[in-house]
Amino acid sequence: MFKKVIEPRVSETDGAGHINNTVIPVWFESGRDDIFRMFTPDLAFQNWRCVLLKMDVEFTSQLFYGTSVNVQTWINRIGNKSFEVYEEISQSNTVCAKGRATYVNYDFVLQQSEVIPDEIREELEKHLYMSNKTASE
Amino acid sequence: MFKKVIEPRVSETDGAGHINNTVIPVWFESGRDDIFRMFTPDLAFQNWRCVLLKMDVEFTSQLFYGTSVNVQTWINRIGNKSFEVYEEISQSNTVCAKGRATYVNYDFVLQQSEVIPDEIREELEKHLYMSNKTASE
Amino acid sequence: MFKKVIEPRVSETDGAGHINNTVIPVWFESGRDDIFRMFTPDLAFQNWRCVLLKMDVEFTSQLFYGTSVNVQTWINRIGNKSFEVYEEISQSNTVCAKGRATYVNYDFVLQQSEVIPDEIREELEKHLYMSNKTASE
Amino acid sequence: MFKKVIEPRVSETDGAGHINNTVIPVWFESGRDDIFRMFTPDLAFQNWRCVLLKMDVEFTSQLFYGTSVNVQTWINRIGNKSFEVYEEISQSNTVCAKGRATYVNYDFVLQQSEVIPDEIREELEKHLYMSNKTASE
Repeated sequence: MFKKVIEPRVSETDGAGHINNTVIPVWFESGRDDIFRMFTPDLAFQNWRCVLLKMDVEFTSQLFYGTSVNVQTWINRIGNKSFEVYEEISQSNTVCAKGRATYVNYDFVLQQSEVIPDEIREELEKHLYMSNKTASE
Repeated sequence: MFKKVIEPRVSETDGAGHINNTVIPVWFESGRDDIFRMFTPDLAFQNWRCVLLKMDVEFTSQLFYGTSVNVQTWINRIGNKSFEVYEEISQSNTVCAKGRATYVNYDFVLQQSEVIPDEIREELEKHLYMSNKTASE
Repeated sequence: MFKKVIEPRVSETDGAGHINNTVIPVWFESGRDDIFRMFTPDLAFQNWRCVLLKMDVEFTSQLFYGTSVNVQTWINRIGNKSFEVYEEISQSNTVCAKGRATYVNYDFVLQQSEVIPDEIREELEKHLYMSNKTASE
Repeated sequence: MFKKVIEPRVSETDGAGHINNTVIPVWFESGRDDIFRMFTPDLAFQNWRCVLLKMDVEFTSQLFYGTSVNVQTWINRIGNKSFEVYEEISQSNTVCAKGRATYVNYDFVLQQSEVIPDEIREELEKHLYMSNKTASE
């Protein structure tokens, strides 16, 4: 599992007084940094590999400014050319948002998706979400 | 159907050269302004009503800076206390992102969800997504 | 003068109920699109030219969600290799933010600043801020 | 001096490959959290006190995704009702952005600015920027 601690910002709240819902995908993407690094070790955009195909978010509790949040990221499924992450954002020991995101391994020069190399697949497998509670209900 | 034209911003691109995926929920939320106004006519946050329960986005084509985009919003389903929107973002006549979002009609003072009033329900029904192409394939 | 109309977004407000101050530079940058296009006609980032050296903002009145804003952009000064813009954001006929930004004409391949070509200089001059009210008090 | 470490996000880069300039005020605001807490100990927006009057930023070097940044915040000047911060963002031991921001102590209920209380003034004074290198050259 990948873990990142984020301190919410005033600019990430909205007029209703909580963290705006559009911030959640931003935090989730930030939580995937270590995965991006597996596919693009130098993180250079000209060598970028991970293209987002779809994502979903379930909002289970309000998030607030003033208390840090934990972003946790698991690998939910590894396909031939794509993989799915399962993610949770918690604050004060409450899971406030859950999401999934599917990426494809893409070669921008050749403009085509490619098989996930074995060495990356092995790295991803170390972070598999294995639990009786199914993440993709 | 609700329609909004948005001009992409330099700050909404990312190092890969396209509009960053986290911007799509921002544009989609902006496309729901007229719905928010149905529930909160003065748009004052102390009278806010619409609480997001979940959303999903499918990314079907890259979006670019330099050409305006169209955000289209339909009502996909109206429940007792909640409703679902179906949304599309197009650029240069290509649908680049499709999404759904489910809101509940919530009273922040009483801290409870409430039945959608008939007059709002009738307004929402005017924007129903009725098509043979199912939005939630 | 360059003019752009922007509809404020829920996600651009903050917990204090107004547009968050960090959004103002975003709207100002968006108002400079036509200037970026003078230096990079195809707006392609690999041909990008305009590098921001400094900016300042004065916040004169609160901005709100629910009413569109006008972003107005003038050229304040044209130097040899750099130029300064003067910008205002208005809502409901009140100037709510004033700012200045200085850009240099930069060649990313040669990694050096370059003289502003005459044909661009002439275009910029058409948008000069000429007023008795001095922009840089 | 206040210190905050921030990990740049993919969504904070732009098509030119660096951190977009509009992100800098966001990071600077985040670096002022401890100051906001002095004026509003519970950080509740209904008790909010700090209203931004003006700010400026000087961009001295490009910032990149992939390496954490340090945001450092000093108090530059304490007036009767307002105060000014001086801020720097560094990455890999290079100062990449310098800025100043002036806040007023504002009572939103009474709709008026108020004198900074002595106990807050004493706290602010502990973080004064005292250096031969003048911050406001």
